[in-house]
Amino acid sequence: MGAKKIGKQTVRLSEGVRIMSAASTVGKKEGEGPLGKYFDKVIEDSMFGEKSWELAESRFIRENMELAVQKAGLKMKDIDYLLCGDLLNQCTASTFGTMDFQIPFFGLYGACSTMGESMSLGAMLIDGGFANHTLVGASSHFCGAEKQFRAPLSLGNQRPPTTSWTVTGDGAVVLAKKGTFPCITEITTGKVMDMGITDANNMGAAMAPAAVDVLANHFKDTGRTPEDYDVIATGDLGDIGRGLVVDLMKKEGFTMGAQFTDCGIEIFDKNTQDTHSGGSGCACSAVTFCAYFYPKLMSGEISRMLFIPTGALLSTTSSQQGQSIPGVAHGVVIEGCGGKEGK
Amino acid sequence: MGAKKIGKQTVRLSEGVRIMSAASTVGKKEGEGPLGKYFDKVIEDSMFGEKSWELAESRFIRENMELAVQKAGLKMKDIDYLLCGDLLNQCTASTFGTMDFQIPFFGLYGACSTMGESMSLGAMLIDGGFANHTLVGASSHFCGAEKQFRAPLSLGNQRPPTTSWTVTGDGAVVLAKKGTFPCITEITTGKVMDMGITDANNMGAAMAPAAVDVLANHFKDTGRTPEDYDVIATGDLGDIGRGLVVDLMKKEGFTMGAQFTDCGIEIFDKNTQDTHSGGSGCACSAVTFCAYFYPKLMSGEISRMLFIPTGALLSTTSSQQGQSIPGVAHGVVIEGCGGKEGK
Repeated sequence: MGAKKIGKQTVRLSEGVRIMSAASTVGKKEGEGPLGKYFDKVIEDSMFGEKSWELAESRFIRENMELAVQKAGLKMKDIDYLLCGDLLNQCTASTFGTMDFQIPFFGLYGACSTMGESMSLGAMLIDGGFANHTLVGASSHFCGAEKQFRAPLSLGNQRPPTTSWTVTGDGAVVLAKKGTFPCITEITTGKVMDMGITDANNMGAAMAPAAVDVLANHFKDTGRTPEDYDVIATGDLGDIGRGLVVDLMKKEGFTMGAQFTDCGIEIFDKNTQDTHSGGSGCACSAVTFCAYFYPKLMSGEISRMLFIPTGALLSTTSSQQGQSIPGVAHGVVIEGCGGKEGK
Repeated sequence: MGAKKIGKQTVRLSEGVRIMSAASTVGKKEGEGPLGKYFDKVIEDSMFGEKSWELAESRFIRENMELAVQKAGLKMKDIDYLLCGDLLNQCTASTFGTMDFQIPFFGLYGACSTMGESMSLGAMLIDGGFANHTLVGASSHFCGAEKQFRAPLSLGNQRPPTTSWTVTGDGAVVLAKKGTFPCITEITTGKVMDMGITDANNMGAAMAPAAVDVLANHFKDTGRTPEDYDVIATGDLGDIGRGLVVDLMKKEGFTMGAQFTDCGIEIFDKNTQDTHSGGSGCACSAVTFCAYFYPKLMSGEISRMLFIPTGALLSTTSSQQGQSIPGVAHGVVIEGCGGKEGK
């Protein structure tokens, strides 16, 4: 049959690609949040026994990816390609976290959309016949991100209400050709969208247009509407970004209902956890998908989901030079396996 | 037929993917070097009329990618996916350089191996049936890289003899399913290799093991030897790195002869241009391939080439924290079209 391009930005995979396993390892704050009980591992120490936050993030990646492979009943040598990325300059968390695996490696930079990007490319490599198994994921670390993008933590800066809280952790999945597992069936790849937002403390607003572009094009490409999905989950728009998407989608002619949520809203309790607009960071959508949505796709509680990790493509240099904050989003359709046993 | 995994790290594409066009735009120093006459455009002003070196790099990307698409006789709307990356933190040169194109975008981070990574993934997306045309490339800028990774240019620091000189420019190719053009037939994807090198002024040594891993595995996977290639070109190992590869490959049982060169050696005249070990940066292999090797593949002067862009996966943070410098390399086999007219 072969894969098929449908519409402008969407491809339908030839046979679909199975998500054999999903693993999530998070920090203390994430463990204390509403999804706490769903994560595979909660690490209380933000240093994870390492000498720096950056090395701690690498350890989150290493241990969590090993767990994903183990949960799939595979060995590292069974993995044909590894695709992942993070927020640190030159993606060093991923490099140092995965180099012991010794697997052919494609490094990605999609900011907080990375889980969508890695799932998209990892699935296409399998569907295209280049791999039997790919290991894909994304990570972030609150302390490393604050240090790099904002201000030293010890300054104790006050955070505007529009800010989000970078999730600490790693989410990873093993993709495979076959088996009774949740199945990636379609991919809608985002364009870089820039609406001129320059406030680095309002990432939700910066990323909302990218999410809207993927959503609207996905519905146009497939002829579906939001009601055709049990869950539509963006990555880390938070409360403010989600509201903007609802408004903007109305202008596009689509009503986003209660099935539309955002991983950044799910992962923290903003009333008790002081996380303002919600969670963010590459790990936000990655760990929420792996811990919370994947089991529901497995059990049959979710039949069809549209997962759209979202990223803000800024750097401290681009912001200091007065540039806007473009966004990107990567949409992946995942169909549940109807409660059948994984095999 | 379908794509086929051969050996441990190599895939053979099902029908091969054609390189319809290649474009290169470089800075003044590159224009003055031995390859000067081959580049499509030489920009004398390192600011390229922009307000910062970072924006200048974005303009190199934008104008050069537009040129690649124009040389292919296509319009931007004919491109299904754009894949590229650069060295700036969070890859902002690529984001700002390409966002006007409004094409589904996969951002990559492979350091100076990015041209190999983007050609690999861009070719697999076509061969797998997901795209008719992809636009892939890589860029770097001497001033932006020095500022970010080393020291303010105005300090006028002395450079050790092992250093290389970051190439300013962008190289981009348009890939397609069909046509009489040079053809990507095989892809050998590199693993992250770390031999404990910590000297950020000796990138050639840091990257050599990654190049050796790809070379040795490529020959084992395909059953070929270096003599089966008219040209084997690594990315930016420079003189010192090339010498290390020759030595290390001898231990692997392969003799690298005169057909083995490095884009970092080709692009500058080290005796007159004060570039020490050679050229480097994502653009080094990208522009050398596009300007110098691609026409020879087109004319039939080269029948089969193994192109292996190489990258050093460090950041200032990882170096300041005393971490080693791991390397990665991405191998692509390109077969010439025997001097037939492109169509």
